Amino acid sequence: MPTAGRWKFVSRAGAPMSKSLADRVRPSLRGRPAYSVPKPKGIRAKLDANELAYALPVNLAVELGRELATVELNRYPDAEATELRRLIADDLGVPGESLSFGNGSDEIIHLLCAAFAGEGGVSVLYPTPSFSVFRVAAHAAGSEPVEVPLTAELLLDAQGLEAAAAASNPAVAFFARPNNPTGTLWSRQLILDFAANHPATLVVSDEAYIDYGGDSLIDACAGLENLAIMRTLSKVGLAALRVGYVHARPLVIAALESIRPPYNLSSLNQFAAVWMLTHHRSLMNAWTAEVRSERTRVATELAANEGIHVFESAANLIMFRVGKAGDGRADALWHSLIERGVLIRNFDSPGPLSGCLRVTIGSPAENDLFLSAVGELLAA
Amino acid sequence: MPTAGRWKFVSRAGAPMSKSLADRVRPSLRGRPAYSVPKPKGIRAKLDANELAYALPVNLAVELGRELATVELNRYPDAEATELRRLIADDLGVPGESLSFGNGSDEIIHLLCAAFAGEGGVSVLYPTPSFSVFRVAAHAAGSEPVEVPLTAELLLDAQGLEAAAAASNPAVAFFARPNNPTGTLWSRQLILDFAANHPATLVVSDEAYIDYGGDSLIDACAGLENLAIMRTLSKVGLAALRVGYVHARPLVIAALESIRPPYNLSSLNQFAAVWMLTHHRSLMNAWTAEVRSERTRVATELAANEGIHVFESAANLIMFRVGKAGDGRADALWHSLIERGVLIRNFDSPGPLSGCLRVTIGSPAENDLFLSAVGELLAA
Repeated sequence: MPTAGRWKFVSRAGAPMSKSLADRVRPSLRGRPAYSVPKPKGIRAKLDANELAYALPVNLAVELGRELATVELNRYPDAEATELRRLIADDLGVPGESLSFGNGSDEIIHLLCAAFAGEGGVSVLYPTPSFSVFRVAAHAAGSEPVEVPLTAELLLDAQGLEAAAAASNPAVAFFARPNNPTGTLWSRQLILDFAANHPATLVVSDEAYIDYGGDSLIDACAGLENLAIMRTLSKVGLAALRVGYVHARPLVIAALESIRPPYNLSSLNQFAAVWMLTHHRSLMNAWTAEVRSERTRVATELAANEGIHVFESAANLIMFRVGKAGDGRADALWHSLIERGVLIRNFDSPGPLSGCLRVTIGSPAENDLFLSAVGELLAA
Repeated sequence: MPTAGRWKFVSRAGAPMSKSLADRVRPSLRGRPAYSVPKPKGIRAKLDANELAYALPVNLAVELGRELATVELNRYPDAEATELRRLIADDLGVPGESLSFGNGSDEIIHLLCAAFAGEGGVSVLYPTPSFSVFRVAAHAAGSEPVEVPLTAELLLDAQGLEAAAAASNPAVAFFARPNNPTGTLWSRQLILDFAANHPATLVVSDEAYIDYGGDSLIDACAGLENLAIMRTLSKVGLAALRVGYVHARPLVIAALESIRPPYNLSSLNQFAAVWMLTHHRSLMNAWTAEVRSERTRVATELAANEGIHVFESAANLIMFRVGKAGDGRADALWHSLIERGVLIRNFDSPGPLSGCLRVTIGSPAENDLFLSAVGELLAA
């Protein structure tokens, strides 16, 4: 380490001075809004956030509460998430040390970008529309988000991806599979080919929705050093707990662990996640099975409405198009549904999702409310 | 946004291609170890992590558990932490919108560096020794950590700070007040002068230990746009919950919020923190008062041992020097204390803390165990 007088640079520095604090906000973040969630009143069916509709039965919640009372609030959490790690490693059939845990997938995505991307002409590449955090995390790391539009069928554009990769030097590429917000299950082979063609790009298969459809790419990790698999407990009934994780090679895990805040999974979150995975996995499986079955019903009944196009989904959500681009029908339907107590997500803006809305598959009763409201509103 | 074919750069890109994934790990992170916590067996007094020694009494823990059972695990947390925000804002006497919350101070420090620092010759400046996360967060943001050594008395070196700032273009400067690991309470005026002299540097007063001593700089925020105040619930009995927060001007809060993962405070953590602050603040105050009183006793009894120098502390910890630099006595004492079931923190390495150990103030019984073990070991 070079030293200069009594103080020292840890490595090196030197750049023009900023004049004001406003100049200090990283250029990539200027004018960027915070994530905001509309919270209209009087909602009876909250189908906007891809949450699972099922709360823990009261007797189990009480039992969990009794157990949570044993957690020592004054002590820092287990930095290694030892028990949770063992359970997840067993689940995936991988060594515990091949995993890194995050405060939700959100934090994993931020850490991956911070560890592998950065400023200086390095990009973070992903198809679009996809999970909004990819863009935020790229910006937070000072990297270029390079967005490759999906085809009209919301599938991957292989040529577009290759052209973007060739021109933009991607440090990290994210593929959500199944994808949110579209629900589409992208080609396994295309992603594996992309990873093979770009060995210096960390290719992340974000499998947040895997419990609702599709095959994991995890078996391909043995042959591809640059492939990482990301998962979360948020879509299977535990969104409140913020537990995300990634399986990757030692090089990747070591880089993540060098910057991961060590106590990022709170003791209560770790305890509740371990308890659920240990004692109530079959309940969680029953929940996801019901959602898959309801998805088939909702898709069929929704598609029976004239003027609605339903995209095929492998996730706990359905993307559908109402009317034509720019005719305002999607926007009108979204507002009318709120008046009837049904909150879904509005993606109607110019581009591949013009005229599109996304509904999360809820409980059968919530889905009924949604379907009948849509039917009545479209008939009116 | 410029477009090239079907895909697009969100802003711009272009840099030499990396050849392998290993090249992709950001240079600042290569070879950096993960944070690791020694966990020897047989410990009866865990005095290594500046935790509060007091767990919630069983009847209150059971009551909290009953309440936690009402938290809906399947729903995402409140992204605005509405209730917690109201309580903290009332406490500090500031508007709720002047606060941003993190999954512990750790996340706030990372977000501050990501929002204001970055690559390209921008530095993150802080006195050293201080909180280890400042360096990790600077590296994670791709910035230069510039470390300004404390004086031999573990106080701020005003000239050294000014020289380092003049040469290194600091985007963010962190001052932990009281400081960890030294316990010292640095000059209020010196930090305020530094902030006034460097209006384009975000100056953060990390007041994690404020409940144990010292005056907050929060009243100076009205006159200094670039001053931010950071706090946490980790040192007052709620380390398990990971709740940190920062009070700052709208410019700073907006930058943080543009990259903060919206669901970073889990529902269980928010609920438990609100419950404790609403119903048991007087208990928390009694705990911290006992620790302050015990600190006086421990400092006095510790200093009575020959060959021990005790540094004055305003935090829930005491830094002390055993013997002389390089004589191995501190290291030997640290190991012997572990054999007797007492875990403290070893800071003995060449530099300002050579020969130094840090003990967290525990319960009276834990402190007795520590003091008698030290006395016996030094006498032997």
